[in-house]
Amino acid sequence: MQQEIFAVVGGDLRQAWLAGRLAERGNSVYTALLDRDVELSPRVHKTEGAARAVEQAGVVVLPLPITADGIYLNAPFGKEKLTLEELFPLLKGKLVLGGRTAGRAKELAQEQGVELVDYFEREELAVLNSVPTAEGALELAMAELPTTIFGTRVLVTGFGRIARVLCRLLVAMGAQVTVAARKYSDFAWIGIFGAEAVHVDALAEQASRFDLVFNTVPAMLFDRRVLAALPRDAVVIDLASKPGGVDFDTARQMGVKTIWALSLPGKVAPISSGEAIKDTILNILDERRDPLGQ
Amino acid sequence: MQQEIFAVVGGDLRQAWLAGRLAERGNSVYTALLDRDVELSPRVHKTEGAARAVEQAGVVVLPLPITADGIYLNAPFGKEKLTLEELFPLLKGKLVLGGRTAGRAKELAQEQGVELVDYFEREELAVLNSVPTAEGALELAMAELPTTIFGTRVLVTGFGRIARVLCRLLVAMGAQVTVAARKYSDFAWIGIFGAEAVHVDALAEQASRFDLVFNTVPAMLFDRRVLAALPRDAVVIDLASKPGGVDFDTARQMGVKTIWALSLPGKVAPISSGEAIKDTILNILDERRDPLGQ
Amino acid sequence: MQQEIFAVVGGDLRQAWLAGRLAERGNSVYTALLDRDVELSPRVHKTEGAARAVEQAGVVVLPLPITADGIYLNAPFGKEKLTLEELFPLLKGKLVLGGRTAGRAKELAQEQGVELVDYFEREELAVLNSVPTAEGALELAMAELPTTIFGTRVLVTGFGRIARVLCRLLVAMGAQVTVAARKYSDFAWIGIFGAEAVHVDALAEQASRFDLVFNTVPAMLFDRRVLAALPRDAVVIDLASKPGGVDFDTARQMGVKTIWALSLPGKVAPISSGEAIKDTILNILDERRDPLGQ
Amino acid sequence: MQQEIFAVVGGDLRQAWLAGRLAERGNSVYTALLDRDVELSPRVHKTEGAARAVEQAGVVVLPLPITADGIYLNAPFGKEKLTLEELFPLLKGKLVLGGRTAGRAKELAQEQGVELVDYFEREELAVLNSVPTAEGALELAMAELPTTIFGTRVLVTGFGRIARVLCRLLVAMGAQVTVAARKYSDFAWIGIFGAEAVHVDALAEQASRFDLVFNTVPAMLFDRRVLAALPRDAVVIDLASKPGGVDFDTARQMGVKTIWALSLPGKVAPISSGEAIKDTILNILDERRDPLGQ
Repeated sequence: MQQEIFAVVGGDLRQAWLAGRLAERGNSVYTALLDRDVELSPRVHKTEGAARAVEQAGVVVLPLPITADGIYLNAPFGKEKLTLEELFPLLKGKLVLGGRTAGRAKELAQEQGVELVDYFEREELAVLNSVPTAEGALELAMAELPTTIFGTRVLVTGFGRIARVLCRLLVAMGAQVTVAARKYSDFAWIGIFGAEAVHVDALAEQASRFDLVFNTVPAMLFDRRVLAALPRDAVVIDLASKPGGVDFDTARQMGVKTIWALSLPGKVAPISSGEAIKDTILNILDERRDPLGQ
Repeated sequence: MQQEIFAVVGGDLRQAWLAGRLAERGNSVYTALLDRDVELSPRVHKTEGAARAVEQAGVVVLPLPITADGIYLNAPFGKEKLTLEELFPLLKGKLVLGGRTAGRAKELAQEQGVELVDYFEREELAVLNSVPTAEGALELAMAELPTTIFGTRVLVTGFGRIARVLCRLLVAMGAQVTVAARKYSDFAWIGIFGAEAVHVDALAEQASRFDLVFNTVPAMLFDRRVLAALPRDAVVIDLASKPGGVDFDTARQMGVKTIWALSLPGKVAPISSGEAIKDTILNILDERRDPLGQ
Repeated sequence: MQQEIFAVVGGDLRQAWLAGRLAERGNSVYTALLDRDVELSPRVHKTEGAARAVEQAGVVVLPLPITADGIYLNAPFGKEKLTLEELFPLLKGKLVLGGRTAGRAKELAQEQGVELVDYFEREELAVLNSVPTAEGALELAMAELPTTIFGTRVLVTGFGRIARVLCRLLVAMGAQVTVAARKYSDFAWIGIFGAEAVHVDALAEQASRFDLVFNTVPAMLFDRRVLAALPRDAVVIDLASKPGGVDFDTARQMGVKTIWALSLPGKVAPISSGEAIKDTILNILDERRDPLGQ
Repeated sequence: MQQEIFAVVGGDLRQAWLAGRLAERGNSVYTALLDRDVELSPRVHKTEGAARAVEQAGVVVLPLPITADGIYLNAPFGKEKLTLEELFPLLKGKLVLGGRTAGRAKELAQEQGVELVDYFEREELAVLNSVPTAEGALELAMAELPTTIFGTRVLVTGFGRIARVLCRLLVAMGAQVTVAARKYSDFAWIGIFGAEAVHVDALAEQASRFDLVFNTVPAMLFDRRVLAALPRDAVVIDLASKPGGVDFDTARQMGVKTIWALSLPGKVAPISSGEAIKDTILNILDERRDPLGQ
């Protein structure tokens, strides 16, 4: 494997972990803004300030998300704050890998002629992240329910990556799993996964059967009608991004316990999640060396 | 559910089964060329000749494949033979559903103005068929191996539908499963399925580890170099269509036991397979009634 | 099913649940000392004081454990306290079912000529409770670990009921599971369950491989030598009753994170656990009616 | 590991395999009566006649079963036949390990002062053999049924070793599994295994629900009444030893397809089965060296 000089600037436990793991593989790794409350591998070179860290680096790893507010680099463990405006001029000529780069970061990269790749858009990272997301969702459900997962009647809406991993887990644990989907081929897969399929359009008629609901669809499936049909003690865990899939205000009024669980991987399993980002970064580098390999 | 008048003309146990099942759901079902050695549900109306069967029918179900030789309708249980040339003029104005219709059948449909839908091209049928294919492949492997599947080191090449179902089965049975794929996201899924991932380009280096191989890729992966690397007693089961994925001549010369297993669903599980075709046919009819449902 | 008059006196959410479920099956159910902070089914007759509740009852259900301090009935939701000395004279002529009855309760039963059956000694309750125990242990592990269970190297010591259920769960979730046991036949079962077997005598040599440990053996397996061999960040969850299986003082000194998790079913899944007690109670009654049935 | 001199006399592919495996571990292994149609590892010393083979051996391995007819040693691959009467005088002072030794072999061992251990009575071998038995039963079912195992309604009677392994397999394959048992604790386990439990006394009422039956109970469960209740096309596979559990004559008259499948491990997976015997033999030797180890 070819060695690189990496700079890892900002981020949380995930970036701290991946910095160590890249170093263990024989790469030179410089970090900045990972100063406090975080343990770094002794193989990592800790530097003062982003400028020093990126100086010799060929590849710069930025956080996921790259910024929380559109202004500052996302660096909760940094002693100081750094704006994207300050950072990007330092990155000229480097390969820069960051997560959720759309917006200001992307603009700055274009202005400064910096090559910026969004690792969060990679399919393999999405797949790898579905495992901590599903486990985190399961942990939330276990904490909320006064019953075991075994024997519980569970509804999963959608049948994308997260839903598939969750469905596997729940079936393996002995839950009675129903998946709401729309496509005939998904119905076939759902049966193969050991679950029952229902059409999403039938949610209101079906909802009374379920003690636990995981929504993975970013569309308003759980409106007043469906919420009203759920059993009184049902727990709804919404894993869908951006608008979510639950009418939270109505749910609150109706007393339906609802949890909107976002960004679980970094929260429940930062090390596994950092490992996944590291693997994805290495894949990106591999592909650039051997574009026909894939 | 809306009722229909069906004619089921030709075919094997699968069509005999689906005729009965359509009838049990309250439809009127007429059959032709399912005369001998096959038991039909008493709810089915058996007729003499295709013309009588299709007369009143709105929907005509033809076999999978629709023809084996390009000339005659595929009707192994028929008392007589019927050419596609004779059949298609009878089908005007009907909705005709057949399997693998490309070629002469499609031409005749166009000439005669018959609406012909190929149910074998439906994604859900492909998914549903992956179960009997995987089970049939497993049965072949069990018959060949002097060991249990439990503990056996198995290689599966490709990670499409059949490979996924097979991988699930093998892992559940306690085999040590490796899957050869090409995409990073497939590598991630393979790990989630409980198997080890290798790159297809590394087959020759890896092959010596496996006692059992299932190929699902219709490309020449098992050439002289890979075959030579397999252990002496390895069993190779090729599930890939058309050209297959194994150099059979070389395998024979080298004494590698190889089985090219095609069209397993109809052979190993005609009833499950007929059920799958029936479900697919009902889906096709549903979609035509409510095109926005899916 | 034959109907009974039950009195459910004292206990927690589990007894509250089982009272409701017995009532739903058509039995008459009177409760006492389940007064506050607990919701009872509307089918249950809530009474003031144990005397009123047991008056007409044929079967009296007491808590698990029957007493926490040897003096008072275990009744955390009762408005008042009741000693076993006060309670037992009321129970003459009744069939009394309680959990962990050894000690004062058993003595009083003998003195008063009360027939007292310990439902906690029933094998089926032990099996049923192994599910909430295993799920509760898993939930603790998920909360502690910065990684997913998927891919984690886990050691389970012992191969009794809880270990078996835990092993199934962990393997299904994609952990790399090793079970430490002593009997050759257990080694064989462990392999069948998809885990690796090691001998308990080899713990010290093996311990460095594991990120997560579940102990189910009530004997001092995790002494200084084994604790010292664990990786620095390992998490140890001790599920063994009475003396436990970990030298907790030494573990604390050495900085090994250790959780002694007792009585999980009632804590993590009171409803499932109440359901299990209800099933066991019905089995006990069935057997008394038809002693040859089993 | 301590080395031994072994003689392996008679037997089939299983003994041929274990001879090779013992030799690969560094032991000296002499074989006799494994002459024809069987491939032996080049590390094994093939001798002419039992006397030469056992001469220097400390441990003598005899077949499973040791004899088929009570007179001759079970040696299907031997060029000549050898009676037990001729064999046992040669074994004085040796540790002799055989399978199913009850009867003439045991008598002769006592007469001649030969220490004879029956490896077939070992619990670990019974557990290890349950895997090839379950897989073999599955293979038979797959060959008989016109459906996939996936989705099939299966009844397993009994819940011993074989039934447990079979139940795991069938549930993993997506069958709808019901297990008939008698004990409440087995009912609890059956639920945990993902199957439905029924009482064996209710077989006649339940039988109409099942397309496939595996009997593991050596008692007449499938009498006329139960057989009559099965669906017309049901397949019954009897895995119970000695008297079996099916009234075969009545089944034949009634047209119920029934297969009595005995001694599956040696038939369907001789190598796995030979491996299991080898492991058991090594366990026996280990225990004799260190009787407190287990």
